[in-house]
Amino acid sequence: MAVRALVFDVFGTLVDWRTGVAEAFRASGVSGEPDELADAWRARYRPILDEVNEGARPWADFDDLHLVTLDALLAERGVELPVEERRRLVGAWHRLDPWPDVRTGLEALRRRRAVASLSNGHTALLVDLARHGDLRFDCVLSAELAHAYKPAPEVYQTAARLLAVEPADLMLVAAHPWDLAGARAAGLRTAFVDRPLEYGPGSPAREDPDADESVTDLLELAQRLPG
Amino acid sequence: MAVRALVFDVFGTLVDWRTGVAEAFRASGVSGEPDELADAWRARYRPILDEVNEGARPWADFDDLHLVTLDALLAERGVELPVEERRRLVGAWHRLDPWPDVRTGLEALRRRRAVASLSNGHTALLVDLARHGDLRFDCVLSAELAHAYKPAPEVYQTAARLLAVEPADLMLVAAHPWDLAGARAAGLRTAFVDRPLEYGPGSPAREDPDADESVTDLLELAQRLPG
Repeated sequence: MAVRALVFDVFGTLVDWRTGVAEAFRASGVSGEPDELADAWRARYRPILDEVNEGARPWADFDDLHLVTLDALLAERGVELPVEERRRLVGAWHRLDPWPDVRTGLEALRRRRAVASLSNGHTALLVDLARHGDLRFDCVLSAELAHAYKPAPEVYQTAARLLAVEPADLMLVAAHPWDLAGARAAGLRTAFVDRPLEYGPGSPAREDPDADESVTDLLELAQRLPG
Repeated sequence: MAVRALVFDVFGTLVDWRTGVAEAFRASGVSGEPDELADAWRARYRPILDEVNEGARPWADFDDLHLVTLDALLAERGVELPVEERRRLVGAWHRLDPWPDVRTGLEALRRRRAVASLSNGHTALLVDLARHGDLRFDCVLSAELAHAYKPAPEVYQTAARLLAVEPADLMLVAAHPWDLAGARAAGLRTAFVDRPLEYGPGSPAREDPDADESVTDLLELAQRLPG
């Protein structure tokens, strides 16, 4: 592989959003099963990003979008929550723990290639997550820099441009086939990393037969990449 | 100080461009005194950035601008150099060593605040320099993201926006009073760090009486910032 740099999806791929967000729901006192609330909140993520990409909603960062989708979720369930409590829940997305292999896996990969985030989350959110989890990127890249959300091709192309590599020399690492398909449509290489606990025990099985690599964690990916 | 994040100028402030560029001239066989050639090349930096900021020259990254200014320098002296040799000289700006305090100083500051580069150099160049010098930033920010060069206010304001802090809560750390003045004009706090060897022994003395802090190195700045 001619891969010169790696970009990583973050939510679900590098960090366990469900455990952290469920914990925040538990602390909030919102009635209901915290894991189910976390899943229901996350389920509103793709539709609202589609609205932005289609021009039906102006550009907004993840804090703003998380607040909108939280309000909709709570309204649907007839839950009233003070604004400071809602902001605390939105803030939970800034303090999510990485999966166990991520810190050492990124270090191993960084010795071989330039590594950067490439998340739909905004820059400041990614900085907080990297600091929280002690994750070392060479560069924090975000959909914010393209003013479009993945899987729009300009997000992946902007990453290649900023890293000064051809799209074919850049590899997206992600747990989500829709994201990997978007990267391939933009000309990138792709690596599928399995995160069987993203939605807790009993998460739906995933695979991506079109990916250049399929691995169980970042350390396996480091072994696959030529030095 | 309410400083929530720090951004750092890079060339001259964090890395010693003169020694590395002079070494590259020495290796190139270009006739002349290598230190003087490095200074003469660097002297063409501000004027060409001004051309871009004034709209007299289209946006171009540092590799492109360094090639233009090198060509002008060599033409002025009647030196002919094959394109691969000129590209090698441009590439020297990607492999400059940091000043001795920088790696540990950034680590000490990073424990207290978010730290990011804020250079006129482009993202890929900054990634190469950070990897070369083992410098750890929470985020690599560049004038490239604002499509304007410092001291244009939008460069500093873009950094504040991406880090999600008010300009008054962001501090620029730099060795150059013109850069610090630009940051203040955009509403940032400023810290002057003295780099008395930027232009070698006998560099002109500098100071910035308007800076919020004036320090001799990054470790002193870390001591000054409340924990």
